[in-house]
Parts: sequence; C-alpha cells; structure tokens
Amino acid sequence: MISNLVIQKFGGTSLANIERIQAVANLIEQSVLNGKEVVAVVSAMAGETQRLIDLAKEVQSEPDPREYDALISSGEQVSVALLAMALKEKNFLSKSYTAFQLGLKTDQIHGKARINSIDTSVLHEDLKKGIVPVITGFQGINESGDITTLGRGGSDTSAVALAVALEANECQIFTDVDGVYTTDPRVYEKAKKIDKLSFEEMLELSSLGAKVLQIRAVEFASKFNMPIRVLSSFNKGEGTLIDKEDENLEDALISGVTHTKNDSKLIIRQVPDVPGIAAKILSPISNVGIEVDVIVQNVAEDKTTDFTFTVKDEDADKAAKILNDLSGELGGGSVELAKEISKVSVVGVGMKSHAGVATKMFSALADKNINIDMISTSEIKISVVVSRESAEDAVKALHDVFELG
Amino acid sequence: MISNLVIQKFGGTSLANIERIQAVANLIEQSVLNGKEVVAVVSAMAGETQRLIDLAKEVQSEPDPREYDALISSGEQVSVALLAMALKEKNFLSKSYTAFQLGLKTDQIHGKARINSIDTSVLHEDLKKGIVPVITGFQGINESGDITTLGRGGSDTSAVALAVALEANECQIFTDVDGVYTTDPRVYEKAKKIDKLSFEEMLELSSLGAKVLQIRAVEFASKFNMPIRVLSSFNKGEGTLIDKEDENLEDALISGVTHTKNDSKLIIRQVPDVPGIAAKILSPISNVGIEVDVIVQNVAEDKTTDFTFTVKDEDADKAAKILNDLSGELGGGSVELAKEISKVSVVGVGMKSHAGVATKMFSALADKNINIDMISTSEIKISVVVSRESAEDAVKALHDVFELG
Repeated sequence: MISNLVIQKFGGTSLANIERIQAVANLIEQSVLNGKEVVAVVSAMAGETQRLIDLAKEVQSEPDPREYDALISSGEQVSVALLAMALKEKNFLSKSYTAFQLGLKTDQIHGKARINSIDTSVLHEDLKKGIVPVITGFQGINESGDITTLGRGGSDTSAVALAVALEANECQIFTDVDGVYTTDPRVYEKAKKIDKLSFEEMLELSSLGAKVLQIRAVEFASKFNMPIRVLSSFNKGEGTLIDKEDENLEDALISGVTHTKNDSKLIIRQVPDVPGIAAKILSPISNVGIEVDVIVQNVAEDKTTDFTFTVKDEDADKAAKILNDLSGELGGGSVELAKEISKVSVVGVGMKSHAGVATKMFSALADKNINIDMISTSEIKISVVVSRESAEDAVKALHDVFELG
Repeated sequence: MISNLVIQKFGGTSLANIERIQAVANLIEQSVLNGKEVVAVVSAMAGETQRLIDLAKEVQSEPDPREYDALISSGEQVSVALLAMALKEKNFLSKSYTAFQLGLKTDQIHGKARINSIDTSVLHEDLKKGIVPVITGFQGINESGDITTLGRGGSDTSAVALAVALEANECQIFTDVDGVYTTDPRVYEKAKKIDKLSFEEMLELSSLGAKVLQIRAVEFASKFNMPIRVLSSFNKGEGTLIDKEDENLEDALISGVTHTKNDSKLIIRQVPDVPGIAAKILSPISNVGIEVDVIVQNVAEDKTTDFTFTVKDEDADKAAKILNDLSGELGGGSVELAKEISKVSVVGVGMKSHAGVATKMFSALADKNINIDMISTSEIKISVVVSRESAEDAVKALHDVFELG
C-alpha cells in the first residue's frame, strides 16, 4: 500500500506574516482536498530567530548554549500555534506540537543536536481523527529535558525525520524558490530548474552553496530512501524531486554548477611528509570550531609537501594564526593566506560513467583565461578553486559547455 | 529554622529590554550577596504578550484556546532564557525552566488554568548546587501535555505557588510601583505607600482595582500564610508587606480607598420576589462569561423587587440584551442600563472593630454633594456606586476624612 501521507515543511519566508500563514493553510487545504494526509513542520516566522539571537548577543557575547536553545526555539512555538489557528479558521481540525509535547528526543549537543527518536503514537491518532498536526521544526529535547536545537536549517531535518518515522510518501520542503536550479539564476540568467536529482547530487549541490536544503536533511533522506520535493510556497509547480538514483534512465552528465563566495585559502609550505601530518595540521583548526572545506595535499618532493585547505573568510585570520604558531613545531615552512577565492564545482551522477568531464571542464576554463588554483574531485563532483573575480565567468562558461541552459 | 529562600517575581515592565533584564540580574545578585537563596519567576517582556495576542486575533477573531495558550506562553520562554544568560554573564550559576520542564501541572482549563502540583525536586537540587533557577510564570501544562496559561497576571500566582511548594520565607513581587498605596497617586497626590497590609485587605484592594497583584495570588498566599512583598524593581525600598493579620497591633481603621473606571449598572425592575430569582437572572449572564461585580437586591415591596448589578462597560450591552430577553419570561418589568458609573470603596480590617465607618463615609460624600446610587458592604470593605464624574472627588474626600495622607 502506498501511503498518502506527505510531510509539508514551511520555512520562515513562507510564514513571514499572517497573510503568508493563511496562504500556507490554503496550500495544506489543497493537498487535503487532493486526498493527501498532511503533517506540517514549520520554522519560526522570518526574522524572528534573528531577533532572538540579537537579544541573546546583547546579554552575552557568547551565550550559554542551554539558554540560547531555550530562547531561540520559542520562535517555532509561535508559528505552529498560528498555523494551527489558521487551519482551524478554515474549519480543519488541527493541533500544534512542540518537541517536548511530541517526545522528539535528541542527543545532548546544544546548537546542533541530532534526533534520536520520535514518538509518533499521538500523530497516528491525530491522523486517524482527521487532525492536521503542526509541528515545530528545528527543536528537540534531550534526556535531561533541556530544549535543544538542530542548527541552522534544522527544520528540514525535523521534516525528513518525521517523514521517515511516519513512513510518509514524500517529504515536501516549501521555500521561496521553485526548486533546485542548474546554477544560481542571479549569476547566470540561463539557469534552469532541475526536475529530478539523486540524493548524491543534491548532497554535493547543497554542500556547495545551493542553499535550498540543509545537507543533514538530505543525508537523512538518502539513508532512509525518503523522497524530498523542493517546492515554492509562493508559486505553483512540481518543484524538484530528490530521490534515489533512477537506474532505468540515462542520467544527465552534469546536473548543476555551483560556486561559493566567502572562502579563503591557506597554505602551509614544506611540512615533513610523514604519516599523521594532515591530522596534526587540521586538529587545532577544527578544535576551535573552524570548518575546513577543500583539502589538497600533493605527492611529496624532497620529503616535504605543501598542504593547502580552504575555510570561510571569517575564520581565515584565526586559522592563519594557528598555522603560524604550529609551523615551527611541525618543522614546516611559511604560511600563506589568500582571501577572495571561490570554489566552482560541477555535479552530476552522469560523470561516473562518462570519461572526459574533467578535461571538458578544465578546457572551458582555460578558454576563458581562468586560472585554476586547486582541484578536488569526488565520484560525482569536480571542484576547482579560482580567484573570486573570475568565479561568475567560470560558472557561465561551465553552464554553457555542459549545455545546462 | 527560618528558610532564607525568597521567590522573586519580575513583571513585564521590569524586563522591558536588555538593560532592564540586567538590572533584574543585579537585584538578584544583591539578594544573594545578602545571604538569600533566590528562585526567580518572570513574565514576558513588556509588550510581548500583547504582540502575540494581536497576531492571534489577526488569524482568528476567537482564537482556539489550546493554540492561543501555546502561542502566548512563548513570551515567558524568551525572558527566562535571557535572565538566566544575564545571571551567567555575572558568573552566577543559573538555569531557566518552562512549565513542562518543571512539571508545573494545572487543570485542563485554557486561559485561566489552576495549578494542581509542582515538582520541586529539580529546584531543590539546583539550590543545593548554588544555581539560581529562573522559571516561566503564567504557564503550566495539563494532563494531556497541552500548554495552559493562568490568566492575566498569572505570573503572580505562579510565584506564590512556587513559594508555597518550596516553603520559601517570602514571595517578592517586583513591579513598577514602590508598593501598595492608600489610593491611586495619579488621582490624589496625597496618596501614601502602605507598609503592611493583611491578606484580607489586599484581597479587597486588588479586586477593586489596585492593580499591583493578581487576586488569585493573594488568595493562594492567604490560604498558605505565605507573606508577599510588593516592591519596585526600579527604586530601592521595603515595599509593602502583605501578611496574615497581626493581632498584637492596633490596625489602622482604613487602609486604602479605591475606585473603578469602567463599570456599568443594570437594573431589572419589579421581578417577582421568589426563591431562586437571583440565580435565574444571573445564570444566563455568567454563562456567557460576563463577570458581575456589585449585586444589590433590596427587601421586596408588593412581592416584587428591583434587582441591580454592575458589569464591565464592554459587557454592558450584551448583558442588557440578555436581561431584556429574560424579563418577560421571569415576569419582570423594564430593564435599565446606566453606563459611566464608578465604584468607590474604603477597605480596612480596622473597621471590623470600629462602628461608624459607614456613617463617616456617607457623610463625607454628602458634604461634597456626591449622590450614592448603590451601597454594598463586607466585613472589611464598604463600596458605593456613584456617577463616574464624581468618582475622583469621592476618592479625595474619603482619603481626607480617614486621614490616609
């Protein structure tokens, strides 16, 4: 039996004001009239979480994690209640739930907790009675009964976790865009909406900056084969379906081109090429919470190697300082920091079975006189690091050469 | 052993912004430095509950009670987290708690729930560890796990309930006034702060419009002999202590003079003077949620009587309509509605043992040519209903004649 249950997740811009909340109630109504059972998952109203974060920062420059989560999770409580009211106003049965009311249990880690379990019994009962449950995204409770939050964009993960727990047919993520695009339409007007993507492609795309879906949500969905559909809450359309790879169809060579806008590159020269050196370099960086993105280490010459990696611009100076302190200790050479770089990537499951994607990519960039700083590849993705000023030209050249328009 | 534990409750104006929240943290610090153990109970930041109510009303003219409570209780979650952060910033140990985290159980009635039980074990543990617990006022959870609220001013009741459950030494209610006054200082500049009041006097004063304390909180405190102290969070001072009647001291004749500003008077003429007639008149009024205040029924003449009562201005037309529909059925006569009246009252335990208070009151009003519409008396209170335009003159005359200045 195919379930007719869909999870519908609405983000902050979809709930920015009462008019928008009423529009969301209309969308849910449409789905119910089309024979679906619906469970809604919602974020805080647009701007609300930021307002709360600003209040916290006024009190403590580094807010206490437990209290910070208690504070910022209040925004979702507001939006679930308002959406449940809007549904009731349309004569639907509806009930709002916070994480504690649902027993949505997470681990202990404030600010980026992971979901351990969800008690779905009350939701099954509601659905039997024709009630539309409206659930706070982003939040959970840990074993101590403290409120936790799942990190930015965590409502997507809440939605997928609920979809899995309830064995829904599909997890629909409503946003302010029509779906996932071949590249950023603001950068290249030839960008096209993608109808279907594999989980793997979406993982590569979302980690690279196509900010429609939280990466953890996609991982979760991939693990449990839960189809995700990215849709607009503003315009009608089928959106982009993200599902397991379809083996019967020939995959497109490349699905999309992405680029980042706030990366910096760090090089530590001539470190001894001995086992464990990479960990020795990166541990002190990640220990202070800095996320490292591209890492390149080439084969060694003269028993030393140049070790290069990228971090976010805002972490660059801190990382450079750590490397400088470290270099002597490791027997390494100079440390170089280059800001204003961008990572440009092409993603597509099709490249697994097609040779020559890399060549085509590098040639296209060479034709435009764009210099490649670093190269990093995976099964379905090739990334290059280029100067930031050439990044948009690179995106356009690659979008053209792989005929995505 | 006398407990050194105090409950400190802070209202919305005491938490209006981050600066005020920091000032509250300073007040708590002072108490701890003075050797007190402190448990804080807080309302939502000033304006926040109203903002949420406005949102609800935009969605539903009569908001769903369960969702309404879920919505408006979010304001307290914000302020507990911020106050706990402010205390942590001062290097105090502190933890915020919502009603569900504390197991603060109420009955099922949304919007004016009553507290059934509080699990104090976690608070006792915190206090042992030197942690200052900061608790959401105003809210609870019912047996179904739904969020409930205790009604306007319910945070006072939360504070007193916690004081009783924790066997605190005193329940301190911090507001924007220095204490309870002999009358409204905006009406009569000779108004004086009262140092000490009995529970009974405070009950009469608070029900009559001295809006510093919720009446249910005083009832609760009276029942369990929990002293309440009303203090300013803006200015230093001893405030007003509300405690059980002190039998060793001679009580002041009159403690205060109060008046209301939005009452209307309804008269139903010549109803048959038979048993049960009062209930028959008032049941349909209270069934629609209208609160009746002063009720006067005089001895009957001709087997009929005039039945008079007061309601809030906003309920007056609705109540008049009900009476009109009812009058024929009851065999009564005309229904009269008079808006723009005020109730002026003098309150004091002293009047129990002193004759002549009523005479003195009525003479003082007569001297000012103020006509009395209705009279109602209790053990420690005498109220008169007068025209609204004469109410402030009446307050001044009574304040003078009972030498409260």
